[in-house]
Amino acid sequence: MPSELTPALRTQIENTIRGLTIDAVEAAGIGHLGAPLALARPVFRLWDRTLRFDPTDPAWPLRDRFVLSAGHASMLLYSLLHLFGFALPLDEIRRFRQLHSKTPGHPEHGETPGVEVTTGPLGQGFGHAVGMALAGRVARARFGREGAGPGHHKVYVVASDGDLMEGLSYESASLAGHWQLDNLIVLWDDNHVTIDGPTAWTFSEDVPARFRAQGWHVASIDGEDLAAFDHALAEARAAARPALIAMRTTIGHGSPWAGQSKVHGGPFGEEVARATKQALGIPLEPSFLVPEEVRAYCAERAQGKRSERAAADAALAAWRSAHPEEAAYWDAARTRRVPADFVERLVEGLEGKTDATRKHSGTAIGRIAAAAPSLLIGGSADLAGSNNTTIASGGAIGQGEDPFAGANVHFGVREHAMAAITNGMALDGTFLPFAGTFLVFSDYMRPSLRMAALMRARSTFVFTHDSIFVGEDGPTHQPIEQLDALRAIPGLTVIRPADAVEAALAWAWIALHAKGPVALALSRQPVPALKREAPFSPELFWRGAYVVRDSRGEPDAALLASGSEVSLACAAAELLSSDGIAARVLSVPSLEWLAAQPAAVADELLPPGLPRVAVEAGRGESWRGLVGREGLVYGIDRFGASAPWKKLAEHFGFTPEALAKRVREQLRG
Amino acid sequence: MPSELTPALRTQIENTIRGLTIDAVEAAGIGHLGAPLALARPVFRLWDRTLRFDPTDPAWPLRDRFVLSAGHASMLLYSLLHLFGFALPLDEIRRFRQLHSKTPGHPEHGETPGVEVTTGPLGQGFGHAVGMALAGRVARARFGREGAGPGHHKVYVVASDGDLMEGLSYESASLAGHWQLDNLIVLWDDNHVTIDGPTAWTFSEDVPARFRAQGWHVASIDGEDLAAFDHALAEARAAARPALIAMRTTIGHGSPWAGQSKVHGGPFGEEVARATKQALGIPLEPSFLVPEEVRAYCAERAQGKRSERAAADAALAAWRSAHPEEAAYWDAARTRRVPADFVERLVEGLEGKTDATRKHSGTAIGRIAAAAPSLLIGGSADLAGSNNTTIASGGAIGQGEDPFAGANVHFGVREHAMAAITNGMALDGTFLPFAGTFLVFSDYMRPSLRMAALMRARSTFVFTHDSIFVGEDGPTHQPIEQLDALRAIPGLTVIRPADAVEAALAWAWIALHAKGPVALALSRQPVPALKREAPFSPELFWRGAYVVRDSRGEPDAALLASGSEVSLACAAAELLSSDGIAARVLSVPSLEWLAAQPAAVADELLPPGLPRVAVEAGRGESWRGLVGREGLVYGIDRFGASAPWKKLAEHFGFTPEALAKRVREQLRG
Repeated sequence: MPSELTPALRTQIENTIRGLTIDAVEAAGIGHLGAPLALARPVFRLWDRTLRFDPTDPAWPLRDRFVLSAGHASMLLYSLLHLFGFALPLDEIRRFRQLHSKTPGHPEHGETPGVEVTTGPLGQGFGHAVGMALAGRVARARFGREGAGPGHHKVYVVASDGDLMEGLSYESASLAGHWQLDNLIVLWDDNHVTIDGPTAWTFSEDVPARFRAQGWHVASIDGEDLAAFDHALAEARAAARPALIAMRTTIGHGSPWAGQSKVHGGPFGEEVARATKQALGIPLEPSFLVPEEVRAYCAERAQGKRSERAAADAALAAWRSAHPEEAAYWDAARTRRVPADFVERLVEGLEGKTDATRKHSGTAIGRIAAAAPSLLIGGSADLAGSNNTTIASGGAIGQGEDPFAGANVHFGVREHAMAAITNGMALDGTFLPFAGTFLVFSDYMRPSLRMAALMRARSTFVFTHDSIFVGEDGPTHQPIEQLDALRAIPGLTVIRPADAVEAALAWAWIALHAKGPVALALSRQPVPALKREAPFSPELFWRGAYVVRDSRGEPDAALLASGSEVSLACAAAELLSSDGIAARVLSVPSLEWLAAQPAAVADELLPPGLPRVAVEAGRGESWRGLVGREGLVYGIDRFGASAPWKKLAEHFGFTPEALAKRVREQLRG
Repeated sequence: MPSELTPALRTQIENTIRGLTIDAVEAAGIGHLGAPLALARPVFRLWDRTLRFDPTDPAWPLRDRFVLSAGHASMLLYSLLHLFGFALPLDEIRRFRQLHSKTPGHPEHGETPGVEVTTGPLGQGFGHAVGMALAGRVARARFGREGAGPGHHKVYVVASDGDLMEGLSYESASLAGHWQLDNLIVLWDDNHVTIDGPTAWTFSEDVPARFRAQGWHVASIDGEDLAAFDHALAEARAAARPALIAMRTTIGHGSPWAGQSKVHGGPFGEEVARATKQALGIPLEPSFLVPEEVRAYCAERAQGKRSERAAADAALAAWRSAHPEEAAYWDAARTRRVPADFVERLVEGLEGKTDATRKHSGTAIGRIAAAAPSLLIGGSADLAGSNNTTIASGGAIGQGEDPFAGANVHFGVREHAMAAITNGMALDGTFLPFAGTFLVFSDYMRPSLRMAALMRARSTFVFTHDSIFVGEDGPTHQPIEQLDALRAIPGLTVIRPADAVEAALAWAWIALHAKGPVALALSRQPVPALKREAPFSPELFWRGAYVVRDSRGEPDAALLASGSEVSLACAAAELLSSDGIAARVLSVPSLEWLAAQPAAVADELLPPGLPRVAVEAGRGESWRGLVGREGLVYGIDRFGASAPWKKLAEHFGFTPEALAKRVREQLRG
């Protein structure tokens, strides 16, 4: 153990965090004060006594995870990262909320060493933490069963009232309780205040009863009472269930505004800042003060954490020797190691196969699981059979002798939590997670889809039933705007394969090349296998567009399509050719892939001046950049209807005849 | 009371519902059987004994509302509507799930008489019902305090396990419990089964404890035990809180598949259909059988319901006489009556006012509340001060002597429930509801935004902080893709006003002309008042685009912009004019308004061939249809950053100089 932490020194450290917060918000002229001031004591205690980390290696896989779901309290986290020696110098704290600083307004994963999850949109940290905890338990089950090896860390969350009001936190907590995630501990900042006023205006739940109803261990303490905190934390760590520690705190602790809504955001202004520092016993000068003894203590503790890491690494090495097979699997999963003939295995025997692309996706999942065991984990929000997301070779999480030995996750009807948990698993870094539902329900997941894109999390979203061809379930279940809306998210790659080979190659790209989240759009209805006339290769496909059926001689028009509309476009081209109109048909599986190509690629595929028609059974406005004002987007600009899908094809004009007719009109001008 | 309902007749009616369901799903070849078979008994009991309605006038304002949140059980609802004499003939039941039938796969409000809410996406009916119940209570408080008048009806909901797993239902239930909505009763179809398997795979909450923790009255009964049902319903109706009746049911009641997941969806196929009918004692022929005695009983009950309505109408007439002022207010709200000089009042004195458009929106809300008392109700998801959504002249719901006398709703940090509740209030038909949050958090609301568009609900969504100019809060709080994603929703009108006058006119259009949902996008940062050179009128504004600043002589380019970028475009045009480039600047407050204009309007504003530049601090791809491939979308194709907004303007090129430079390059080609 390090130097003695006297109560005076401990208070001084807590006040250092508070002082840094006050000064940083004052310098920025804007920021959140209330929560860092309130939470400095218990959260420093957690970091000091319990949290396992190595400030020089924020990616150490055996570390505990700390998730600040109340992301607006970012200065709490930045202060701790700075004090414990992460690569976050004081100059960065001084530049809080400035352009290109490592201290953005809300914590951003990838921008600041030690920030595990981007947080700020409420509920997200909570949901992502459940995913991290699940990944940890699955890693323990797959690799570290005998008390050693990976997956024995904990996931700690600091959550605000706002986090607990978001539907996402209920959904995630419901799953965490169901799975009995014993490695998840949530510290609830129960401060009785939100931005608009007292929580009593909007939030009168019995929160402990709510969490108990969801299967959690719950303790309620005074957040300033460290003995109570230590006791509650020890019990929470020992519990065989996820644990909530309700910490009654005072927002803006120590300030004249303590306990009031207005202390949520700042700055204080000079006078209140001074009064707060005086009340806390913080020297008024210099600002951004880190007293020597505080720095020394934290440095010594950081050294202690590194020693603990060295011991853990030694134990891991022993585990590697004792369990070479598990260790090899663990490494293979984390490095996404796949056999040399991976792509060939995925596409083998698929040419000419006619079926729904969701089924081809299911085949690909099965083949990946066979080729790279331990890589995949995923499931569906109660539509596993429809989404074709089940890994036949894996059991189900939550069932069987070891409830975490499986690979299939039953998320229940909880799309939003599914997305957040999938991202959390991706952030854990061990597995390649995926999540399935109907495309129309991607709407429920958008806040977490955005988080995935912001963090470049390697989540895969399997969206089946990707058009009006859902059929009888009607407009509530038929996506129209979803493809455009997903493509609008920066950094999300949307892939809509057109047949079995394309579906397999989409999955191959996900496993081999994806650097961020991917949304797959897959058909409910069977689609014919494409007859590719032109040269074809995985690399041509991964450029985002390729010629499926070229015209004989100079083309009169280009038909661009994705997914189930590629074969439709081919059939229409056939009709047009008998009218003497030469149409080149391109399959465009991903507009993002194509946009990333040099302009020459697009110009080769689509010579300038060639009239263009984009065909997609959806809104289709995202194709405008390719086809222009003069071109035609052959899409659907209203909601769908309840009817058998072939009737809908006629009704909405998605037949070869109707499409060919419209193209003829378009070319006539 | 009508003819005696013997147990035998009652069973026959329940089985008629079941038989219609089996036959309809069999005829369609697809549909949901399990829940209608399970729920026929208690839900028929509710309709028979308790539910207040008039089948000949589904819009009767004093009716009870029945919300089938488990929308997949649509045949339950269609059967009841048919039996009780709504305008839904048996032929429509025969055409279940066929094109242009009144019996789509999931119930659609506006398509079928008696369908209160479109349902199917789980959780939505629950959330919308809370909004309906809130509107009822507010109507009671505003108009019907003394036991007579409007607002004394109840809202009944049938919810499935899936409904209760969705975050939306937790959020909505939390508010219902907080508000103590005594007019809301939820019947939970506790059938232990979801699509993927037993609920035990994913859902192990103590649901009664959960609802009690949220302040609800809870009863648990056997769904087949009508004495228990009657007792529980009486208690629920008498409770001073929202009530949940957990009804243990058997999915697919009476069929060989009863209690199994596979009975959720159908069809049965001939053999199982026959076995089920035989087990239930339903004659095998004819199909779609409604026995005479069943028809007679239901017709008599329908007549009874109409008599009850007549009595209620007489009481309402007495209330009108006794409370002429309240009655006049009630009528004024429901008919959206406003003073003749409404538009003038809204825009008065605003020319030249410089401020954030969110503040101008707040001014408009205040002026509408003054001009048309009792029309508005709304609030924010814990950002009332930032969203400028507070009606200064109205109290707060949940506070004061009568907790429903206010006009301001504190939704807490529950964006999704806020949207659903707002739609529910719109569907109630009494008020013009609105809901505010940051634009980026529209992502949390999308499933309910879509519901609003599907139903043409007159909900207004006030989305402030509508660009990267949120500033220091950083990319998690800065919308990029949201404007495009909202514009992609069919039937949603997105309006992004550029200054005080435009904000007022946007609100005027909402009050006077909107036929469906509207999303307002409003700036956090102050924007200069536009100096409109060209002719201007509300009508020109409502066309979706107008010339703010024309070029002298023939224009060389058109700059199209919305919101805070209109003044930027004007400033850039000024710089360009000193270079001899004549730019016409158009304010384009709404692409949907413009798209609804005859082509001649767009051609007049934007002569064909004139180079076009669209300026918007967002993704901007929704402008492609206007500017074409050759034109320029001057937008932002990546996530934002944390910095003061003026720094971000420089960093992302949203300064007059940077824009003018890029336009010059563009014109040079």
